[in-house]
Amino acid sequence: MAVGLLPPHDLLPVAGVRLAVTEAGIRYAGRRDLTLIAADEGTQVAGVFTRNRFSAAPVVVAQRHLSSGTPIRALVINTGNANAGTGAAGLQAAEDACRVVAVALDCPPESVLPFSTGVIGEPVDLAGKISAALPALKIHLDENHWEIAAAAIMTTDTIPKACSRQIDLDGQKVTVTGMAKGSGMIRPDMATMLAYMATDAPLQGEALQQCLQDAMAQSFNRITVDGDTSTNDACILIATGKIAAEPISRVEDSRYAPLCSVITEVAQFLAQAIVRDGEGASKFIPIQIAGGRNEEECLQVAYRMAHSPLIKTAFFASDPNWGRLLAAIGSAGVDDLEVDKVQVSLGETRIVRDGARDPDYTEAAGQAVMAEAEIPVRVDLGRGLASATIWTCDLSYDYVRINADYRS
Amino acid sequence: MAVGLLPPHDLLPVAGVRLAVTEAGIRYAGRRDLTLIAADEGTQVAGVFTRNRFSAAPVVVAQRHLSSGTPIRALVINTGNANAGTGAAGLQAAEDACRVVAVALDCPPESVLPFSTGVIGEPVDLAGKISAALPALKIHLDENHWEIAAAAIMTTDTIPKACSRQIDLDGQKVTVTGMAKGSGMIRPDMATMLAYMATDAPLQGEALQQCLQDAMAQSFNRITVDGDTSTNDACILIATGKIAAEPISRVEDSRYAPLCSVITEVAQFLAQAIVRDGEGASKFIPIQIAGGRNEEECLQVAYRMAHSPLIKTAFFASDPNWGRLLAAIGSAGVDDLEVDKVQVSLGETRIVRDGARDPDYTEAAGQAVMAEAEIPVRVDLGRGLASATIWTCDLSYDYVRINADYRS
Repeated sequence: MAVGLLPPHDLLPVAGVRLAVTEAGIRYAGRRDLTLIAADEGTQVAGVFTRNRFSAAPVVVAQRHLSSGTPIRALVINTGNANAGTGAAGLQAAEDACRVVAVALDCPPESVLPFSTGVIGEPVDLAGKISAALPALKIHLDENHWEIAAAAIMTTDTIPKACSRQIDLDGQKVTVTGMAKGSGMIRPDMATMLAYMATDAPLQGEALQQCLQDAMAQSFNRITVDGDTSTNDACILIATGKIAAEPISRVEDSRYAPLCSVITEVAQFLAQAIVRDGEGASKFIPIQIAGGRNEEECLQVAYRMAHSPLIKTAFFASDPNWGRLLAAIGSAGVDDLEVDKVQVSLGETRIVRDGARDPDYTEAAGQAVMAEAEIPVRVDLGRGLASATIWTCDLSYDYVRINADYRS
Repeated sequence: MAVGLLPPHDLLPVAGVRLAVTEAGIRYAGRRDLTLIAADEGTQVAGVFTRNRFSAAPVVVAQRHLSSGTPIRALVINTGNANAGTGAAGLQAAEDACRVVAVALDCPPESVLPFSTGVIGEPVDLAGKISAALPALKIHLDENHWEIAAAAIMTTDTIPKACSRQIDLDGQKVTVTGMAKGSGMIRPDMATMLAYMATDAPLQGEALQQCLQDAMAQSFNRITVDGDTSTNDACILIATGKIAAEPISRVEDSRYAPLCSVITEVAQFLAQAIVRDGEGASKFIPIQIAGGRNEEECLQVAYRMAHSPLIKTAFFASDPNWGRLLAAIGSAGVDDLEVDKVQVSLGETRIVRDGARDPDYTEAAGQAVMAEAEIPVRVDLGRGLASATIWTCDLSYDYVRINADYRS
């Protein structure tokens, strides 16, 4: 029951990127749990990974392979097992997985990036299962398989998340297509989240890495479902350079800004889709904090609100309990906040004026806006010109149900 | 349904402290919602209050009266309305409340401390209601009313919280009795919590204030239910000095340490009682982090775990999902943590050894310990000699229900 999110539609192929999915029986039988993405020669790939100290084995291996400088030719993604907290055996399993894919695709093991999502801490024979599944995967590789791949990488997601955008770059049509999974253990600085974006633009080197970081800063690093950070998060940007154009290798290139802007747009769509499909989410809540002295304190207040179980349950209950909003703002660590300068609105309804209930506010107006499925929260701290926006969701019975039942 | 917590029993009066409760109809009819505590002449009082920038009007007024140096003679506590987010009118209401109590008890208004708990942001005519209730309150003032007072200050609490302890101090029997309320919006640095402790010991001046702070640091500032900080928190220590002994005004006094230790014991009982009765709590979870470089990083890891909705729901489900524990430890911001030195136990069952699943661990053993109502979590970070313990509870359907329904 994702909030205001339709299944993927009108996905566009990206020249040079082919995808295939299959049932490998990694945890459950009869479920597409393995995805292979193959990239043509000449492709460049950038990645950003979880900062969790207990990063999973595939994260360690993917980072090692990316930094080896070997051109990346394939990504292999399994659900059902996160291969995290699995020690040396897990690292070996991730390396073995890359090796069997490399043999099948005739490339070095360092050309393969592994990704895993699912239960943490269970041993797994990835290579064996992948090896058995590879013949079927290879046959089905196709540029038009983004939609089934977006479905195959899901775990507790209720809906696949993917979108495409196109822009004209000096008369050339450039395509960006992306997909992502994740709905729990979501917080900034990477979430339980796997995201893959691809473009046929000739984005290269530092410009490629910078573009991914710029896009992340305005998308996946601005969302939170439950404040938890996963061991397995990864976001990958693939640039095949298939369109006939000069390489874009510097951010000063006049084509960089418009291209990065459209890639950011795809990243934002995917990041917001993750929140809209947050575990148990029934409301989608953009929180905009303005009037701060700097972006950092705006984010501090925004996350304090977004991580407050009391605020999240009030949104679930459609209860305009603005006292909880004030309590969160007041405890966000902005020590010299002048509370009588604070304004708070829900949607177009101002509820707090100069630090206290707006005299014009009525409970009926508050309840009307809280009944909506999307409730923008706007706070003005009244102390500066900085602002920041993050996206979150409510906390419902279903969040508890999903996470209390997940392993059973 | 508090976890392992019985109703108060064997409460001892504290000479010089009398209490009374009544129905003042502040929010609901037919409910004891007003408590008066009167202290004899010669009493000294210390207080610690919320750090929330949106601190409630009674907090502002109580701090002002305490710092005026006027001897405190009365505390007046209402439930049903927090008198927070109420602006200048709220401040006036809190001052007025003190004034009517002062008139009735024949003392200056600065001798009265006001406390409010309940819904935030609703206007309230406290003075009118208190004024009407004062004759009944005055008649019923009694040293043996701790138990009914502990019940009258409750909001979403399911059980009154109070206890007594005695020690011998140089052959004199000293009594400490305390009561507290609070079960949601609970986090360190003060919770949605009101706590009142009293002793007949002649604790004075700086020693009194220091003792309250020492006790707080090991009790109310080591608990969390939901990470939310209230606008109204207060913890008060009353020392009547009724026993015949020389004043204890310096921490160097040989009687200070044993006395403060027993006061800390009362504070810990009350703080843990609040967690045991945490909103929707079905498990009581002490989290001990050892092997840290300093106490600060131990607390950082402990709170990261205690605030993880994924961990809290796993405890609710009695699911030994230790991957979630590792994920929280790994994202607690201890950047140079060596994960292969980390050990984790639940109760007496070691689940993580050297950063990965203990080879001897079995799911059956994990499930057995998770089935208990009290589940001590022990983590060794393997990098130093510091340690810290906090107390928290699980996150259940009932937490969502209570907080989604609270105002309706």
